[in-house]
Amino acid sequence: MRIGILTIGNELITGRIKDANASYIAREMNIQGWRVPILMSVDDDEAAIKTALDHILGMADAVIVTGGLGPTADDKTTAAVARAYGLKLYRDEAVLRRIRGIFERYGFHWAPGNDKQADFPEGAELIANPVGTAWGFSLNVQGKLIAVLPGVPGELRRMLPEGVLPILRRMFPAAVSAVATRTFKLTGISEAEVDSKLADADLEGQGVEVGFYPDFPELRLVLTVRKKTEAEAQSILKNAEAQAVQRLERQIFACDDETLEGAVAALLTERKLTLAVAESCTGGLITDRLTDISGSSVFLERGAVTYSNLAKTELLGVPESILGEHGAVSEPTARLMAEGVRRLGHTDLGLATTGIAGPTGGTEQKPLGTVFIALADGRETLCRHYHFRWGDRRRVKVATSQAALMMLKRYLAAGSAPKK
Amino acid sequence: MRIGILTIGNELITGRIKDANASYIAREMNIQGWRVPILMSVDDDEAAIKTALDHILGMADAVIVTGGLGPTADDKTTAAVARAYGLKLYRDEAVLRRIRGIFERYGFHWAPGNDKQADFPEGAELIANPVGTAWGFSLNVQGKLIAVLPGVPGELRRMLPEGVLPILRRMFPAAVSAVATRTFKLTGISEAEVDSKLADADLEGQGVEVGFYPDFPELRLVLTVRKKTEAEAQSILKNAEAQAVQRLERQIFACDDETLEGAVAALLTERKLTLAVAESCTGGLITDRLTDISGSSVFLERGAVTYSNLAKTELLGVPESILGEHGAVSEPTARLMAEGVRRLGHTDLGLATTGIAGPTGGTEQKPLGTVFIALADGRETLCRHYHFRWGDRRRVKVATSQAALMMLKRYLAAGSAPKK
Repeated sequence: MRIGILTIGNELITGRIKDANASYIAREMNIQGWRVPILMSVDDDEAAIKTALDHILGMADAVIVTGGLGPTADDKTTAAVARAYGLKLYRDEAVLRRIRGIFERYGFHWAPGNDKQADFPEGAELIANPVGTAWGFSLNVQGKLIAVLPGVPGELRRMLPEGVLPILRRMFPAAVSAVATRTFKLTGISEAEVDSKLADADLEGQGVEVGFYPDFPELRLVLTVRKKTEAEAQSILKNAEAQAVQRLERQIFACDDETLEGAVAALLTERKLTLAVAESCTGGLITDRLTDISGSSVFLERGAVTYSNLAKTELLGVPESILGEHGAVSEPTARLMAEGVRRLGHTDLGLATTGIAGPTGGTEQKPLGTVFIALADGRETLCRHYHFRWGDRRRVKVATSQAALMMLKRYLAAGSAPKK
Repeated sequence: MRIGILTIGNELITGRIKDANASYIAREMNIQGWRVPILMSVDDDEAAIKTALDHILGMADAVIVTGGLGPTADDKTTAAVARAYGLKLYRDEAVLRRIRGIFERYGFHWAPGNDKQADFPEGAELIANPVGTAWGFSLNVQGKLIAVLPGVPGELRRMLPEGVLPILRRMFPAAVSAVATRTFKLTGISEAEVDSKLADADLEGQGVEVGFYPDFPELRLVLTVRKKTEAEAQSILKNAEAQAVQRLERQIFACDDETLEGAVAALLTERKLTLAVAESCTGGLITDRLTDISGSSVFLERGAVTYSNLAKTELLGVPESILGEHGAVSEPTARLMAEGVRRLGHTDLGLATTGIAGPTGGTEQKPLGTVFIALADGRETLCRHYHFRWGDRRRVKVATSQAALMMLKRYLAAGSAPKK
């Protein structure tokens, strides 16, 4: 089955925004095993919309259209689609009551143009909007499907799976397969290395599609199985997952929508361990990431962004002699920072980073991207030396925060922490 | 003039990546005053590319094509374009020598397929790639222009202005105007408020195009003037800029590519002032942003992420009685945090945030999004109370960091800091 995508809006063709909807829909269609031959964007303009629909339906079984369903004069998609296929518009009283209800509940002012959002082409099947006032609709035009959805990403992401997928499956039953999919998130490994580690498992030979989606500082590995029945797809996927985990356990830090900071937070909370963080080159990025997790106050006692040498000495107790002899970017300093911040925060664990983020400050012995990360638990202090070669200041910071959280995650997952 | 955009690549139609090139090119064309009627993406496939070119050139004077110029078998754009217009390919020996030179200089391994990157359709005008091996080319096909560029964003962003714009201007001289443009970055104000503040200036009446590009937590206001001569365009723009600054001085924090943290860093460095930051609800985000600026170690002495009450008391000297009586999220606590971190860091200035980022922890008196930001300079301590109503944890953090940096910028710009 072939499905084209048409996104409508002046903000797209003037480059005001990047089109996140087209790539989202394309990804979802690919997961179903359906091919997307074309993505197109045009202006909110009746003639442009008709020309676009004709072109796309010349090469596809269905088209998913987004945008132009709002209440203003600029929003012309519904009228354009109706006119393109010689259909009249009717006003749906049930939808109108729903929209009015939303306005009343939130105390919004009702403008006359809002009525328009209850207008649909005759013969359309309506697609409910569970989170807004712009309902969608679909039309069966000579065996081809036109599905029209709002362009607001949060609404689209509900209405595509809940509203459009069931219609597509019903209309094109031969193209339907049961799909089972799992995303593994990895860090500290390249696409080529993952590929070679998985080679002997021959997942493709078992009917598993293997996709790589690099998204710095992560690499996403997506396994997808499409079969006639859900049970069959799940069983093959489960087996493939086990093989992937066996070969990549050290690099996988999360599944599906989980994040690295979320995984670390869950482990710390579960083990009832507390953490203090001392950051030099990461400048607060590690605690920023951890505090994105709701409930982080349970384990995160404090952080110290010890950017100056004086701060390292005063707050963390790193002796001036160590800084003088080994430098602020050194293994002894990193170890003492981790131990010092653990003491400062009276916590179970202390995590510390120090490094050269650039673009200046590199030397022959310690080039740009040289980083030391240390983790202290009161019994021992681990320290690792990294060299991030990308050169860009932000990337070195992000890579360092990723490596530090990964070190903490491995430590916690290995059950190395003192029992409480 | 109308210019269509065609981006080619399997990674686009499978949704593996969002298409940043199309929106970039569209924006650049709009700045020139040229209209973009259509954006299209198709697979690396000869037939699909030909169909796409035919459709786009049916409605445009020129098409800019990106992607598929690499050395692998997947890269079919050059051959597809040549075949679409019945042109033979020739090998350009000068380009081949240049590409080989790059490989030798960097010690890359030369694969036989690399030769292909020196193949071009007969009659093409070559477009040099100053930063890579994928040269572009343009063809004049019956008065319409086809310009083909690589899809690597860093290469495209050099070759479009340096290579394609001159060709378009030469081929379509009637469509050329001199363009002068300025971007103002604002925060803490809505699009509608900016619109109403600018209304009496009637910039459109002076021949100035006014565009709004919200990019949370910023709002970008873009003024563009297109005239016959550069001098005329610059003179009108300069006048419009002055009117905008007069009306929006308080909300404008940067111009063009400057960032808020960059503007704050420049002011602190220029005034030779030092800063310490105490963060509760922002969790390190403020120091993370400031340390993205190279040279921030000159002014940023340290940061304290005082997530626990104990950290606020021990590190910043906020008395337990204040925390007990007013709460951690309160004006007295924020003031004492700013004063405390200034003392702790021996700095000229102390900046502090405390608030309820959510999703839990809100009360009737202090709902989610309640934030206090304080700035201490040793003579006086400013404190402001904010209520960010968006509810999402990350957005409250980002909005708070923005408001805190903005408070600091206004303080510095007003020359309020003690003279050194």
